[in-house]
Amino acid sequence: MALGGGHGLYAALSALRRVTDRLTGIVTVADDGGSSGRLRAELGVLPPGDLRMALAALCGDDEWGQTWRDVVQHRFRSGGVLHDHAVGNLLIVALWELLAERGGPVGSTVEGLDWVGRLLGAHGRVLPMAAVPMDIVAEVRGADPARPGVVTRVKGQVACASTAGTVLGVDLVPADPPACPEALAAVDDADWVVFGPGSWFTSVLPHLKVPALARSLARTRARRIVALNLVPQPGETDDFSPQNHLEVLQAHAPDLRVDVVLADRGVVDDAEALDKAVAALGGRLVLADVADPGGAPRHDPALLAQAFVQIFAQ
Amino acid sequence: MALGGGHGLYAALSALRRVTDRLTGIVTVADDGGSSGRLRAELGVLPPGDLRMALAALCGDDEWGQTWRDVVQHRFRSGGVLHDHAVGNLLIVALWELLAERGGPVGSTVEGLDWVGRLLGAHGRVLPMAAVPMDIVAEVRGADPARPGVVTRVKGQVACASTAGTVLGVDLVPADPPACPEALAAVDDADWVVFGPGSWFTSVLPHLKVPALARSLARTRARRIVALNLVPQPGETDDFSPQNHLEVLQAHAPDLRVDVVLADRGVVDDAEALDKAVAALGGRLVLADVADPGGAPRHDPALLAQAFVQIFAQ
Repeated sequence: MALGGGHGLYAALSALRRVTDRLTGIVTVADDGGSSGRLRAELGVLPPGDLRMALAALCGDDEWGQTWRDVVQHRFRSGGVLHDHAVGNLLIVALWELLAERGGPVGSTVEGLDWVGRLLGAHGRVLPMAAVPMDIVAEVRGADPARPGVVTRVKGQVACASTAGTVLGVDLVPADPPACPEALAAVDDADWVVFGPGSWFTSVLPHLKVPALARSLARTRARRIVALNLVPQPGETDDFSPQNHLEVLQAHAPDLRVDVVLADRGVVDDAEALDKAVAALGGRLVLADVADPGGAPRHDPALLAQAFVQIFAQ
Repeated sequence: MALGGGHGLYAALSALRRVTDRLTGIVTVADDGGSSGRLRAELGVLPPGDLRMALAALCGDDEWGQTWRDVVQHRFRSGGVLHDHAVGNLLIVALWELLAERGGPVGSTVEGLDWVGRLLGAHGRVLPMAAVPMDIVAEVRGADPARPGVVTRVKGQVACASTAGTVLGVDLVPADPPACPEALAAVDDADWVVFGPGSWFTSVLPHLKVPALARSLARTRARRIVALNLVPQPGETDDFSPQNHLEVLQAHAPDLRVDVVLADRGVVDDAEALDKAVAALGGRLVLADVADPGGAPRHDPALLAQAFVQIFAQ
């Protein structure tokens, strides 16, 4: 299984679906921007965007899967009110509303995602990390450039992901959201849990702030992989080294052991320092070439899949 | 095949799909109201609503077909900009945009509808009567209640369907729209062509004002059925008798022969006059009980299917 959100989780799932059909993506539901933010505000639903993108990553390679993937990822372009809405977001929300009308709200969130997964011929399942929409609140040093040393709180995923200053940590509002029962069961059943890549504070760490999910992640018998980013995330992790990423992970989940940290060979400047940080989490470092060979700042799905295969085999 | 739009075509297709799998619905594309009208205005596309409803009528009876039927028919309810948009309308438009991006606009209209049909497990095919959006213009006597005898022109499907006064006839703008080639081929191949039921001036007669389609309908070797309405359409046909419906049909398509006119036994007051009007079109009158036995002013799909079976067998 893979935990995250946005493009990072898309990369992880695109790689993992080449390796296994027993695959679950567990997705942040704190987005408050773009199409998702508008749907959340207008209809009071979970933000569907990261869920949609994760489903798209699991699509089949046949014409059916590829066409419906393109449909759910399609965004309207206009000078009007539909501009930038992703079709899959509208479809997911429609299923939630319809299933809630049919049989009450319980379970309809997951059932709706499963229906879209069936439409897409998805190789695996996508679940939300929690059953209610939530907000991310970040502690930020120097959010106000006029007062560089002062720590303040910044609220909302968009604001957190683009703040000035240095993000020190994140919390959720509400602080103890109900976890998604199917997500807890999937963590218990998993062989491997993959954290990242992705926006560290706003996509990867939020899962660890859902108390019931954090407990499941700490106690599962699955082995845990952290897949590090290729480039710092502007706003969130501008000056972060790979070991900084691991330090904030540990700060957010002190009980979490990590078995493997996977990093792209090309982005590690100080392998010794990273090795030490990995050892502090109880794991081992795996360096591999997983970046897009063309130089784009993204993981190559085939190379990332290859790295996962090697890790799973050891 | 069945020609029409809106709830009338939905009723015809719901009945016919119980009788045959070789089924095509040819749909008016002149709607300028509601979700369709807004999409047409914002995105410059064919109004998708009547096409969506026709596809929904063809859905399979299994859980898959019924669920996706309910999804495409689902309308958002909110105080915001998505209010009243039907999900299937958005889905159809997204496919049109996507296929146009992929391979140019030619053919993508029909291809997009075929993709939605495949999603729904549709028993048959849905085609637009023309390849471009258009407007209906009605000649109306007494549209202005202050000048009851004066004939004026009323533009737009919504305006025509709800005008005061008496509608005398309809035209299309543009007057010679390009027909949909697949629709012409379907008319040539058909065994039976069913006109109506439905809003007479705004859903049933417009097909006859698309010149190429009207020529195909006049020359096809298929036999032609006119299925009359159960109740007058407020605004359009308030004081129309069943024979009035046939008279305006003939006025709009003087070359069209009709083989069978199907009317509900309960709505015919003057069978002799109707018989005469049917004979003038070259056909025979079939009276049957096809209305909803509960008394709702709509056709019962099973009873209507039974009537079609009997007509087809004769």
